[in-house]
Amino acid sequence: MQRMSQLFTKTRREAPADESSRNAQLLIQAGFIHKEMAGVYSYLPLGLRVINTIKRIVSAEMEALGSQELIMSTIQNKDIWEKTNRWSDEAVDVWFKSQLKNGNEIGFGWSHEEPITDMIKGHIASYADLPRYVHQFQNKLRNEVRAKSGIMRCREFIMKDMYSYSLTEEQHIAFYAKATDAYMNVFRNVGLGDRTFVTSASGGLFTEKFSHEFQTVCEAGEDVIYVHKDGTHALNGEIFTDETLQKMNAERSDFEQKKAAEVGNIFTFGTKKCEELGLYFTDAEGNKNMPFLGSYGIGITRLMGVIAEVFSDDKGLVWPASVAPYDVHGIVLDGKEREAEGIVQALEQKGMNVMYDDRADRTAGEKFADADLIGIPWRIVVSKRTMEKGMVEVKNRQRSAIEYVSEAGIVEKLKTV
Amino acid sequence: MQRMSQLFTKTRREAPADESSRNAQLLIQAGFIHKEMAGVYSYLPLGLRVINTIKRIVSAEMEALGSQELIMSTIQNKDIWEKTNRWSDEAVDVWFKSQLKNGNEIGFGWSHEEPITDMIKGHIASYADLPRYVHQFQNKLRNEVRAKSGIMRCREFIMKDMYSYSLTEEQHIAFYAKATDAYMNVFRNVGLGDRTFVTSASGGLFTEKFSHEFQTVCEAGEDVIYVHKDGTHALNGEIFTDETLQKMNAERSDFEQKKAAEVGNIFTFGTKKCEELGLYFTDAEGNKNMPFLGSYGIGITRLMGVIAEVFSDDKGLVWPASVAPYDVHGIVLDGKEREAEGIVQALEQKGMNVMYDDRADRTAGEKFADADLIGIPWRIVVSKRTMEKGMVEVKNRQRSAIEYVSEAGIVEKLKTV
Repeated sequence: MQRMSQLFTKTRREAPADESSRNAQLLIQAGFIHKEMAGVYSYLPLGLRVINTIKRIVSAEMEALGSQELIMSTIQNKDIWEKTNRWSDEAVDVWFKSQLKNGNEIGFGWSHEEPITDMIKGHIASYADLPRYVHQFQNKLRNEVRAKSGIMRCREFIMKDMYSYSLTEEQHIAFYAKATDAYMNVFRNVGLGDRTFVTSASGGLFTEKFSHEFQTVCEAGEDVIYVHKDGTHALNGEIFTDETLQKMNAERSDFEQKKAAEVGNIFTFGTKKCEELGLYFTDAEGNKNMPFLGSYGIGITRLMGVIAEVFSDDKGLVWPASVAPYDVHGIVLDGKEREAEGIVQALEQKGMNVMYDDRADRTAGEKFADADLIGIPWRIVVSKRTMEKGMVEVKNRQRSAIEYVSEAGIVEKLKTV
Repeated sequence: MQRMSQLFTKTRREAPADESSRNAQLLIQAGFIHKEMAGVYSYLPLGLRVINTIKRIVSAEMEALGSQELIMSTIQNKDIWEKTNRWSDEAVDVWFKSQLKNGNEIGFGWSHEEPITDMIKGHIASYADLPRYVHQFQNKLRNEVRAKSGIMRCREFIMKDMYSYSLTEEQHIAFYAKATDAYMNVFRNVGLGDRTFVTSASGGLFTEKFSHEFQTVCEAGEDVIYVHKDGTHALNGEIFTDETLQKMNAERSDFEQKKAAEVGNIFTFGTKKCEELGLYFTDAEGNKNMPFLGSYGIGITRLMGVIAEVFSDDKGLVWPASVAPYDVHGIVLDGKEREAEGIVQALEQKGMNVMYDDRADRTAGEKFADADLIGIPWRIVVSKRTMEKGMVEVKNRQRSAIEYVSEAGIVEKLKTV
């Protein structure tokens, strides 16, 4: 249980003047994040809880894919990136760089294909060592020119990146398909399934061969996609051409243009990067060969931003139950602390996580406004009136209806969707 | 269960030539870490498990102190640090700095007193908002000249840092004492209790008033402490003077000089930094006042390095049970996979975490050597010989004795210390 009297963060009535994005405005107002500078945010206790919950959802899918977790360094070795011609600012325009005391240049990790491929050289020797899948939750640093979408595009952000080293292109393609399904599971599990589409992409910094994006329909998104009227698939701007439509036997009018945010992407690197970095294995016939590399990213903090954009209303945030910082927001009024504590403790014992507004110096109106702003799925109120009825007031953040439920019936009620 | 046939990391027979420190040599040989450059390491699956376990041990103590977890940004705002005169390289010689595209300078977080104090301004207004305790597990970046102690002194490392904002000095002193106890609990719980001492410190970058260090006796340590022969307390070099000894009514010969590693430290900042950064609260009389600031650090990766130094022998690592990456190292020989799997599964069901060496292409000798190198507390062997006895071979990494235990008795056996 988190007592609001002890929670150090405070809500704000007014949106911060220096934020134009809705996600940052709401998350700052509700005390989830703190802005350090444009594109750089810290995550306060409520925000960190959401991040950790999203990480757990992603971890479960990574584990099911057989991927092993590690954590690479932020400080990057110039030599490794020079081998793949991605050190220079001309090749990669988002590097932050600095120097050691001896004058040697270092970079700060904006991506990790190179160091992971270099590291894994010490652990892959023969075909028996493949395939291998590894992933991390990494704090990426990118020197972005533009940073005005709150936590949806940052100079510092958390990304889950996974890398697959396959024996053959066939093996890669099969894993790539499994990874695509795993990613869709993630987006479904955080509540964005019905508005997230896998779209084909081509071109761009990473791509040698095929790649896909996961695009979530969202007004604040920086991308444009074309969603088929039947809602089953979408095309991104690059491939929404007459040629593609002809191949699909479809018409422009079958699709609707929507703004979208890229919440994930998957890339096929092929064997080139392994060759550049010297990652080889000996195949069954004793020949030297390169693994087939794939890379798979989900922007964890961006995903949180998109969820905040999509699930919010004029009163505040409306977290899906699966990623909410707490399950229940308990409010005590009229000095009914003893009764409220008992109910809250009982909920905690039944495995529910409760934010408990025990603040004595706030009015009912202030407490209700904070509950709406913070956006925990269920609100329960224990007051003189509810106790007279022998009941607890229960309200879902997504609905306006208020219900009175007996103490014994609360858990059952909170399990309904 | 982690099958070694699937674990991507491989052990190495030889220590890496470019490492002089024992902790880095062993941790690299056993596949726990990877060296990116001097003082910069990545944490591979086994290493990450140890880190996460140490974090859980620390988290439990932080939670018991009432501290709330957050995560600050790595990218640092120059303006904030200029207010306390800690931006210039003359004042702080470990900054890594870089520039945004618009030319603005940024720093990379080597410490976080300033940004946390600046952030918390928005959340502390009156005496009713105090005290407040916050902490994080942060990836710190420091431009160290020297970096030759493996993961004991790094340019990039994980630190748990906690900050206390108290109403008064008295309140601060009381919390400082509680935090000292909590820190000692951590060192006890990771197995270093009997060789870790709280020593008084003075001077140094941080200190305005009193501060203490937690020093673990360790040959690889960079510090020198003087441990009283009765083993109950120690003095650090700075205060091991005739004056101190006279006050203590002790003699030089009562103390033994030992090398030690600083695994934690606690500082009293007083009110100056809050004043510099503009953190005020209104007291009960309506007067403007500054909180009393304390700061408390534990080097998580350094702690892992110290544990590796202290708990290792000529065969490899010898993890204390509380921080080991797995509880049991299962080895199957002579094609007894079916029997071994059953036993390993049963152990997992009883809540033990098992590393299972199912590799078909390794000899018994290679498997035993790897088990010793990786250093998981218990090793069990299922082979033709053990099965003929209807038993499993059990050995503790700290002892040479081998015992035969019936399948039904294993869990009980593994609970012994």
